[in-house]
Amino acid sequence: MLTASYAGNRTITIAEAEPVSPAQGQVQIKVAYTGLCGTDLHILHGNMDARVSTPLVFGHEMSGTISALGDGVTGWRVGDAVTVMPLDWDGTCPACLAGNQHICQNLNFIGIDSPGSLQGYWNVPSEVLVALPSTLRLDHAALVEPTAVAVHDVRRGNVQPGDKVVVIGGGPIGVLIASVAREFGGEVVVIELDPNRRAQIGELGFETLDPRETNQVDWVTQWTDGAGADIVFEVSGAAAAVLGATDLAKVRGTLVVVAIHPVPREINLQRLFWRELTILGARVYQRVDFEKAVELLDGGIIPADLLITKIVPLTETQDAFGDLEGGLAMKILVDVQAGS
Amino acid sequence: MLTASYAGNRTITIAEAEPVSPAQGQVQIKVAYTGLCGTDLHILHGNMDARVSTPLVFGHEMSGTISALGDGVTGWRVGDAVTVMPLDWDGTCPACLAGNQHICQNLNFIGIDSPGSLQGYWNVPSEVLVALPSTLRLDHAALVEPTAVAVHDVRRGNVQPGDKVVVIGGGPIGVLIASVAREFGGEVVVIELDPNRRAQIGELGFETLDPRETNQVDWVTQWTDGAGADIVFEVSGAAAAVLGATDLAKVRGTLVVVAIHPVPREINLQRLFWRELTILGARVYQRVDFEKAVELLDGGIIPADLLITKIVPLTETQDAFGDLEGGLAMKILVDVQAGS
Repeated sequence: MLTASYAGNRTITIAEAEPVSPAQGQVQIKVAYTGLCGTDLHILHGNMDARVSTPLVFGHEMSGTISALGDGVTGWRVGDAVTVMPLDWDGTCPACLAGNQHICQNLNFIGIDSPGSLQGYWNVPSEVLVALPSTLRLDHAALVEPTAVAVHDVRRGNVQPGDKVVVIGGGPIGVLIASVAREFGGEVVVIELDPNRRAQIGELGFETLDPRETNQVDWVTQWTDGAGADIVFEVSGAAAAVLGATDLAKVRGTLVVVAIHPVPREINLQRLFWRELTILGARVYQRVDFEKAVELLDGGIIPADLLITKIVPLTETQDAFGDLEGGLAMKILVDVQAGS
Repeated sequence: MLTASYAGNRTITIAEAEPVSPAQGQVQIKVAYTGLCGTDLHILHGNMDARVSTPLVFGHEMSGTISALGDGVTGWRVGDAVTVMPLDWDGTCPACLAGNQHICQNLNFIGIDSPGSLQGYWNVPSEVLVALPSTLRLDHAALVEPTAVAVHDVRRGNVQPGDKVVVIGGGPIGVLIASVAREFGGEVVVIELDPNRRAQIGELGFETLDPRETNQVDWVTQWTDGAGADIVFEVSGAAAAVLGATDLAKVRGTLVVVAIHPVPREINLQRLFWRELTILGARVYQRVDFEKAVELLDGGIIPADLLITKIVPLTETQDAFGDLEGGLAMKILVDVQAGS
């Protein structure tokens, strides 16, 4: 089989390797597709070198079929279509004991802290498997993981029918949040600088705003009859977006910070105070989010074809990251079996 | 009667004036005591000149007895001991219609946006009255308003029995929050730079920390068996405190921002994300907070005698602000009738 590894120094190495038999409690998955995401790009850029051990076979947004079962695995069969919720918690830390296993204080994120799915055959503990329905295409199923992120964010923001929702940043996660929020009954506007992305998002039926052309505070105030938005999702990662986001929310409204902000950001605490706002952090997902994500993709609620800009063979993984970096793609899938 | 007015240019003017009869729906209160607070100091410093009209008779933490009733006022009698919840909302804005009248989008804060209680006789709409029990001393009752702030903050932070609570900043509001949080069942530590304040707070039975002597993150981590605090109250107003506060909270913990931060502050959004924290703004109070505050003061739960550093006649209001400014006092009450 072929593997793609982050080798340090912004380099991906493609190598041949022998598949390993699954250990007790593990299953071996024949990986079909692996999506490349912003976190993978952070790894490639060396931003996470303090955390990852190289060479690292990375990748964690995936789909595939079970190819072998380790001893003691029950409830699964060879050939089952699956995806993976790549969280391996210790079950004993204070966060786990309080029921927040998904953000375990000693979390092993599979594909970052241990090997991921950019390889032909991948062994994982059976506990992390999520079943896929036969009606869901495997390329679309590679979007289950990022869709689960969006479901988690929308649940965390508690979007209710009729809520006015602002999504700042129209990249793949922004589009997924907008799609899920609409499915939960929200009315959504997406704020995005890039005109091509705005056009794509507009075709999905969402309002869009260019904040350089339109005063976003005036627009949102008018859209909400003077109240402000119920929920604002910050998905852009930009300092200016964070600083402006609090001005968009209603009294007792919510700002969900989804984007990674590696350095502290200025927040308008005067506005937080004045309107008694809530700011929430949201990280990864819980099993309920994965199950909802499968349902939304299977039901055609998620615009999978728009999000998947292209599918490349594993040998072209490095170039694919180049396209992501340049903003030329929403989501690129690696066809892990192609060329192997 | 005597009045004390903010006249602009850091100046307070003391003047003689004739009491005015209460209009329809108003009551006239013979003011006993008025507490001086941080907001009053902001007014005196000119920080709120864009909002206030001068000369402004200010003051809004008060106690007194009803001296006259306007037409149409029912349910109150001359001689009743009262305090005032100084919020006058429009009832028609989106915030009011959603049930958040206390942070009405067009709020008239009595004592800031209209005349306050630094005068011998004060007319207010009867709706803002709060009854005082005969067992509560009127000097202590002047602390009802700041105590209601603390009750609101503690309710907003949802402090539950057994919660580990960190209060950053041991001024009057910090001490009130610590006292209310303990009454709600929390275990409380107060982080405070000033050794005199730490000693006073320690005498009330609270743990205290000097963050220059003790690594506060290590201390809180150990205190909470590795989890982090359930709720952190930021009451200091300091930029460094805000930046460090997120490191003190547990997974899914809460940071309540109580202090006024007139300029944007840096927040560690990486930590917000990593631990799925909640940051809440908290402003003023609701009637339930006032009623609870009366109960806590009447029950001796609030350390009123410690908080009231001294009581001065109205003619010494300007000097009293000087003491507050210099950090020489927790709370100073003005005896509004003395010397008149």
